[in-house]
Amino acid sequence: MNNFMEIAVQEALKGIRKKEGGPFGAVIVKDGEIISVGNNQVILTNDPTAHAEIVAIRRASEKLGRFDLSDCEIYTTCEPCPMCYSAIHWAKIPIMYYGASRDDAAEIGFDDKYLYDVLQGLITDEKLMSKQIERSECLIPFKLYDEDQEKKLY
Amino acid sequence: MNNFMEIAVQEALKGIRKKEGGPFGAVIVKDGEIISVGNNQVILTNDPTAHAEIVAIRRASEKLGRFDLSDCEIYTTCEPCPMCYSAIHWAKIPIMYYGASRDDAAEIGFDDKYLYDVLQGLITDEKLMSKQIERSECLIPFKLYDEDQEKKLY
Repeated sequence: MNNFMEIAVQEALKGIRKKEGGPFGAVIVKDGEIISVGNNQVILTNDPTAHAEIVAIRRASEKLGRFDLSDCEIYTTCEPCPMCYSAIHWAKIPIMYYGASRDDAAEIGFDDKYLYDVLQGLITDEKLMSKQIERSECLIPFKLYDEDQEKKLY
Repeated sequence: MNNFMEIAVQEALKGIRKKEGGPFGAVIVKDGEIISVGNNQVILTNDPTAHAEIVAIRRASEKLGRFDLSDCEIYTTCEPCPMCYSAIHWAKIPIMYYGASRDDAAEIGFDDKYLYDVLQGLITDEKLMSKQIERSECLIPFKLYDEDQEKKLY
């Protein structure tokens, strides 16, 4: 078995035993070495964003002191939900290995597939009502930011 | 102007002035009272997941001591990226008001629209190579979790 994925599975198992959250683990690797590990800690931390990949990304960023993880790879025991997929993108991680699929996650009761279907426009999100208001006022910070010649891009 | 959105805009402006990150702000409200505010802090914290909505959700969850924010609303100065949209979903927030659109964000250089297009299958994600490996081993934690009668759902 792939060594890094094996460690991700161990993280997932540890998280279940300690009742920290869902059955998910992730490992971030750079140059063949583990930078960080993470498991789902939604229950432990009361943070709904504390999915395994997000936990691992935050730890890797903290350890490396940068938000750009473009020299890293991520191993995750399950195909990331859209939140985590997008977080991997924002972290600029270019390579991802995943184990179980979104359908596997749906079978044990997780909404990953539902969310993908919503974002793909296949179904309407009946759980979230959204409405656009005050667009012109919200463009004021955009303009200020766009004109800032000294801003650090991310 | 809507009071809560006005505060979200002020958070965004404060974040730009302090060079904390992108021009985005968010406010979480419960029963007409502000529970938390957030602005993009990717630069300040070196955390690529520190978008305004995620920051506000983490603070609200910490303040209320629970991951379930189903009695809250969120005001955000920009249509959330898929990461934040999904985080709002995982936090079970049922009502969202947003100001600027994903197209407005694209115009000042942010990838929100790109990510939505990727997740909708409209374009291929050339920035992220993904590959499924070791599915059967990764299903072991799923099975253990699924059989745990005492697990706390989230």
